[in-house]
Amino acid sequence: MENWHFKPNGEVNTAADITIRGILNMIMGALDAKDPRPTIPLGHGDPSVFPCFRTTPVAEDAIADVLRSAKFNCYAPNVGIPPARRAIAEYLSTDLPYKLSPDDVYLTVGCAQAIEVVLTVLARPGANILLPRPGYPYYEARAAFSHIEVRHFDLLPENGWEVDLDAVEALADENTVAMVIINPGNPCGNVYSYQHLEKVAETAKKLGILVIADEVYDHLTFGCNPFVPMGVFGETVPVLTLGSISKRWIVPGWRLGWLVTSDPNGILKETKGAILQILEKTKGDFFKKIIDILRQDADIIYQRIREIGCITCPHKPEGSMFVMVKLDLSLLEDIKDDMDFCFKLAKEESVIVLPGVSVGLKNWLRITFAIEPSSLEEALERIKSFCKRHAKKK
Amino acid sequence: MENWHFKPNGEVNTAADITIRGILNMIMGALDAKDPRPTIPLGHGDPSVFPCFRTTPVAEDAIADVLRSAKFNCYAPNVGIPPARRAIAEYLSTDLPYKLSPDDVYLTVGCAQAIEVVLTVLARPGANILLPRPGYPYYEARAAFSHIEVRHFDLLPENGWEVDLDAVEALADENTVAMVIINPGNPCGNVYSYQHLEKVAETAKKLGILVIADEVYDHLTFGCNPFVPMGVFGETVPVLTLGSISKRWIVPGWRLGWLVTSDPNGILKETKGAILQILEKTKGDFFKKIIDILRQDADIIYQRIREIGCITCPHKPEGSMFVMVKLDLSLLEDIKDDMDFCFKLAKEESVIVLPGVSVGLKNWLRITFAIEPSSLEEALERIKSFCKRHAKKK
Repeated sequence: MENWHFKPNGEVNTAADITIRGILNMIMGALDAKDPRPTIPLGHGDPSVFPCFRTTPVAEDAIADVLRSAKFNCYAPNVGIPPARRAIAEYLSTDLPYKLSPDDVYLTVGCAQAIEVVLTVLARPGANILLPRPGYPYYEARAAFSHIEVRHFDLLPENGWEVDLDAVEALADENTVAMVIINPGNPCGNVYSYQHLEKVAETAKKLGILVIADEVYDHLTFGCNPFVPMGVFGETVPVLTLGSISKRWIVPGWRLGWLVTSDPNGILKETKGAILQILEKTKGDFFKKIIDILRQDADIIYQRIREIGCITCPHKPEGSMFVMVKLDLSLLEDIKDDMDFCFKLAKEESVIVLPGVSVGLKNWLRITFAIEPSSLEEALERIKSFCKRHAKKK
Repeated sequence: MENWHFKPNGEVNTAADITIRGILNMIMGALDAKDPRPTIPLGHGDPSVFPCFRTTPVAEDAIADVLRSAKFNCYAPNVGIPPARRAIAEYLSTDLPYKLSPDDVYLTVGCAQAIEVVLTVLARPGANILLPRPGYPYYEARAAFSHIEVRHFDLLPENGWEVDLDAVEALADENTVAMVIINPGNPCGNVYSYQHLEKVAETAKKLGILVIADEVYDHLTFGCNPFVPMGVFGETVPVLTLGSISKRWIVPGWRLGWLVTSDPNGILKETKGAILQILEKTKGDFFKKIIDILRQDADIIYQRIREIGCITCPHKPEGSMFVMVKLDLSLLEDIKDDMDFCFKLAKEESVIVLPGVSVGLKNWLRITFAIEPSSLEEALERIKSFCKRHAKKK
């Protein structure tokens, strides 16, 4: 059922063939079973297994309540039950200058299904889509499945991973259907400013294309920029917002996502029973606690990386749970590339990190820092000694 | 998001355009809001809303337990978590002459996703698939989506809705990839004998095609034929079995289905945390109670239909929760066809029944009898007076 393939030398065939899980599984295969130390996973996108990231009892109670009511055992409308659509519309409207209607909201099986639906709907002969590099490879995979041509624009590390808007303009043509923005950034951990998002909206308007705003990490921010939903610019350009409860509530296994149309000008036309309680009753304390841990983790990783010569972090993470760091291979003796780095790191140090090639940037690393802070410290200690051991002799 | 369309006269464009829900919604639009009597729905496929069909506390407890454990909030493997795959393999193996392995089992988001996956995987240029008529129109819709040509074989009402195997042989060619068998039958309410399924397997073997066995109503039988899984003939021909907990446990909204490969000869190669408890701990009492109600309902509908001149039932239902009955339009004065019958019945009697055209048989009706027995009696009383009122004057 997996549709990725690797060449015998471990290289990935094409971007569309990549799944992050596939690459992580390969790297985990390199772990040394005889290492007595616990394996530290910094490659995942799912912190729910760590005690400090357990979801709030409010969410558990909400599910238990609807379960005991036996009112939601029946088939639901494909687009979601009305109370759920209403609750999500209200939840998202609090951050917008206009009110979303329940009719703008479609519930999906996690955000992954929202991506599937959007790319299926946008597919037509000759269509192309603009995707960020680095990005989230499920977009490439689904675009290939729907025969949509992918064109990549760069995110600029020296500019806090902002979109290269000149590249966007150069790439687009009359067959471009949309551009994708992931904010807070996966895998870069950046958070876009109001001003930058405004420019994105104006560029998309000029090009006559939709903006698909992947906001699955909404509100997981801990730097200077507050989270601004792309829908704020819905009057400039139609926005399709993708979101879910997976990250903010840390329950990705519950598979509840949504697809929302933000189009107040009407340029475009067009486990659920618990969501009302979950959205309305979760207290700020819970979110604050999670953000505090993520901020602490971001501080740890940013400080510790600076102590490692061959790895640089161009931009301190401010959102999501990832940071992209750059490998300087010229300082390492026997490391061929990022894939090689990750395989050897797994084998020698029992630390799992995702090679940047899996998200579109060769010889970078994506490190997940959503883990118990003490484990993160330990992992960075191990990465440091790994790099020291493999450093080129002066 | 719905992809069906109706011509202005209410006719459906093509089989692939039909969704049962779409047609039921149209018919519900014809209800007379001023009718003081409660509407009786006999068109649905979901009895979970009726108190007598509430699921077992075992299933509710199982979900509550895994919820409170916080062990299953994380992403699961796409194919399902190992304990769930193991539990389903063991559950299904009890009815088979060989043992399924957990690797044969793929968990899906309800049986609908299992259909999507199978038809996506089987798609290739020029491929065709053999589908039963009447049948379940989601197969037609997904085949069209995957560009697989559909060829229909008839189910024979006079032979207890058995497959017309001569037609199957005549339809198949070198581009035929599979045939679909729905047993217990939706929409016919029949249950195939061991001998008939054996012939189906032999025919498929001769033609060199897969059998896709839709067993979503497995064990919901209340006639003479016991339920025999198609996988029993897995040594004759590779079988892909589709199932779910939706019907036997009456929790379609929980969206847990599976896709199982039964291929002991190896001709082919190839809210989950709770399923172990649900499958292992549900007592026979619960299933017996549900079957008893369905049998009582089947008796009621078969008797009452015999009192109505213009409707005949060629085969008493023995499984699932549906019966197909034939309209004799020559006995009715002002009824054009089955669609017209259902619209007028909704408007005049507040009873919802599905026109046969939605499942491939024009001028038949599909009646769901999974409803409180007293409501079913009331509904048949209303259908009887409707038919009397519209009868041709002698």
